[in-house]
Amino acid sequence: MSNLNELSASEAAKAIAAGEITSEALTAACLDRIKEREPDVVAWAHIDPDAALAEARARDKVAPLGPLHGVPIGFKDIIDTHDMPTAYGSDIYPGFRPTSDASCVAVARAAGAVVLGKTVTTEFAFVNPGKTRNPHNAAHTPGGSSSGSAAGVADFMMPLALGTQTGGSVIRPASFCGVVGYKPTHGQLNYVGTKVLAASLDTLGVMARRVADLALLRAGLLGAPASVATLVSPPRLGLCRTPWWDHAEPATHAAVQGAADTAAGAGAKIRDVTLPPSFAALQDANQTIMFYEGRRSLAHEFNHHADGLSARLIEKIPADLDISFDDYRTAILCAHQCRQDLNGVLEGLDALIVPSAVGEAPLGLESTGDATFNRAWTTIGAPCVTLPGNRGANGLPVGVQIVGLPHGDEALLSVASWLEAVFGA
Amino acid sequence: MSNLNELSASEAAKAIAAGEITSEALTAACLDRIKEREPDVVAWAHIDPDAALAEARARDKVAPLGPLHGVPIGFKDIIDTHDMPTAYGSDIYPGFRPTSDASCVAVARAAGAVVLGKTVTTEFAFVNPGKTRNPHNAAHTPGGSSSGSAAGVADFMMPLALGTQTGGSVIRPASFCGVVGYKPTHGQLNYVGTKVLAASLDTLGVMARRVADLALLRAGLLGAPASVATLVSPPRLGLCRTPWWDHAEPATHAAVQGAADTAAGAGAKIRDVTLPPSFAALQDANQTIMFYEGRRSLAHEFNHHADGLSARLIEKIPADLDISFDDYRTAILCAHQCRQDLNGVLEGLDALIVPSAVGEAPLGLESTGDATFNRAWTTIGAPCVTLPGNRGANGLPVGVQIVGLPHGDEALLSVASWLEAVFGA
Repeated sequence: MSNLNELSASEAAKAIAAGEITSEALTAACLDRIKEREPDVVAWAHIDPDAALAEARARDKVAPLGPLHGVPIGFKDIIDTHDMPTAYGSDIYPGFRPTSDASCVAVARAAGAVVLGKTVTTEFAFVNPGKTRNPHNAAHTPGGSSSGSAAGVADFMMPLALGTQTGGSVIRPASFCGVVGYKPTHGQLNYVGTKVLAASLDTLGVMARRVADLALLRAGLLGAPASVATLVSPPRLGLCRTPWWDHAEPATHAAVQGAADTAAGAGAKIRDVTLPPSFAALQDANQTIMFYEGRRSLAHEFNHHADGLSARLIEKIPADLDISFDDYRTAILCAHQCRQDLNGVLEGLDALIVPSAVGEAPLGLESTGDATFNRAWTTIGAPCVTLPGNRGANGLPVGVQIVGLPHGDEALLSVASWLEAVFGA
Repeated sequence: MSNLNELSASEAAKAIAAGEITSEALTAACLDRIKEREPDVVAWAHIDPDAALAEARARDKVAPLGPLHGVPIGFKDIIDTHDMPTAYGSDIYPGFRPTSDASCVAVARAAGAVVLGKTVTTEFAFVNPGKTRNPHNAAHTPGGSSSGSAAGVADFMMPLALGTQTGGSVIRPASFCGVVGYKPTHGQLNYVGTKVLAASLDTLGVMARRVADLALLRAGLLGAPASVATLVSPPRLGLCRTPWWDHAEPATHAAVQGAADTAAGAGAKIRDVTLPPSFAALQDANQTIMFYEGRRSLAHEFNHHADGLSARLIEKIPADLDISFDDYRTAILCAHQCRQDLNGVLEGLDALIVPSAVGEAPLGLESTGDATFNRAWTTIGAPCVTLPGNRGANGLPVGVQIVGLPHGDEALLSVASWLEAVFGA
């Protein structure tokens, strides 16, 4: 078997369990790919090939620990690791070594995963970009804040990576890099040991190249079913242009419309869906919550290391941030109301089809792009999957996003898997 | 002014702002009280008088930073401090020094607070007790997990302390020690830098001797109003015996019934309230969520320091804990449903009156008591306040709890303040 680094996580896990490949060989293939491509992609905040290979060899010596046995995973560098530095994308914490693994790292290890390394994040998973480039065109952003996780999985450096989303930090980079991205229901993946910006929004998410791998990760971290259930009939989908449709580029319009047409051609029932007016306020609500909570989450850094914070961060959340508690509470209550309203929106539907991002990855590395099409779903905590398969005018990937009801993650993965097959990805 | 340590936080903040007392004098009075009483009460996991006095003197030298200026606060020892050890009540982390202050510590400091020290917690805020004793009778538990915070405030060691509640860890020790305890709406106080056991439940809470102090803390940490609004007319209260009433001791029955009678005598409208049948499941839901999430939150400790975990902890959440993802999700959905149902329960009412705890603090230090009357409210994230003023057969305090709607914290504090006055505390 050649190009082990191109295996999906599920394929790799299966081959390791069957004794067809070793974790060491898989990890070595990933490391070879990284060695070759890292100068161009810059996906890694920290990687130690010897340590990764040692963990892989340890896996090869024991009976399978769990669903992720032997699978190398990249972890966004706001996720603590006890044996690797964790710098949070900030100048304040160079070489910082946490005492403990974050929950998701420790549980993944207990389920057999190999921690390949730490992927580049924007500063504290907020706006100031890291050094990662889009593997499809190094002049373009990979998106963020989970930049290295998306770029690395897209570039076949590893089959699976963890990221986090506060605005659009999983779905957008996944869309820009042309991989599958998954933001679970808020709170489902344990974020203990992750540097939280806004707990009411922050959600651990997953980058992979196949929908099946999302279930694999859920099996490892949650004990959820390890495979995606097959739909008994084609799904009922709501084509939802959202109140922000005019903000999207033609490539996104074409991708969303094309996805609906392709799904309809394969038997899906499609109907147009309009969001309740209350949803328009979710853009501002997301920002209000992020800034209000973020200012408090970073209070220690403001107290002791203000000089080490980027000008961009301080511009968005200054020390004297002027968001009142009442405005914050109004934003939280708006999120609650819209979460309730989503039940009505999705009545009789298995999922919504919506844009993943405004369009292709923008030119330049100064910004990681626009979260307009992500904020609403993050703020109400609904699960989202972005699927690759389309390209824009510059030849860069354009994703299509599907959205389900909170705690309906498994049903959403079934829809995603059906669409993945129909799209012929 | 003598006995500065007996001032409430609001009185102290006002006196400091008026230049009537210094933070140094107040802090010194607290430290004197601690020196005298700590051998009996054992409220502190860490205290460094020189450091506390130095911070107090620094406050005295500058213009007021915020609402908490100069006020000494005790922080439960699962809350990170960059300049004091934080051992999480565990044998695994003796002398551990975090890199950063937790959000609540950093924001409190920015609002002028003095970090007096770290209060005793049960192991990881779970079941295994610390060494704290009930200040009213050293043979009895102070309750837990926020044991030192409750005992220290009750014993006039400090006016204000932070704790956390996953089951009943703020309200129960406050009730047992005879202080005001406040568990805010879930998620309102930022828990970044707090050792989280179960994020879906864990709520930072407050111990104080006066209801006004709860608003003071909210002002400092949230920017919420610094004083409690006065009710324009007596409140409408639901006397709610809960499905667990028979589990309570006569002292609790008498305290709850007496509170309702006293309130009615002062003009409150009281009616009996029965909870929907769905609420009965919240006891088990709380445990399911706590154990399922707790096992994952402590995964690093299970991977690397299992020998350092107590037998009690491992008995409750063993390495091979047998809670399925489906059972966990069912518990989460039960909580969501009951949160919705609470709107109906509280229709036309300002708050519920319910038991704070089963009864007086039990004899012995082997257990911190029973969370039966707390789990439901924690699980649905509703704000709660326990008020002191009653005594049981052993002469120990018995609290009365009031419960409001999530995000209705300020209205609940108004009810609490009205009751405090009516009870003549």
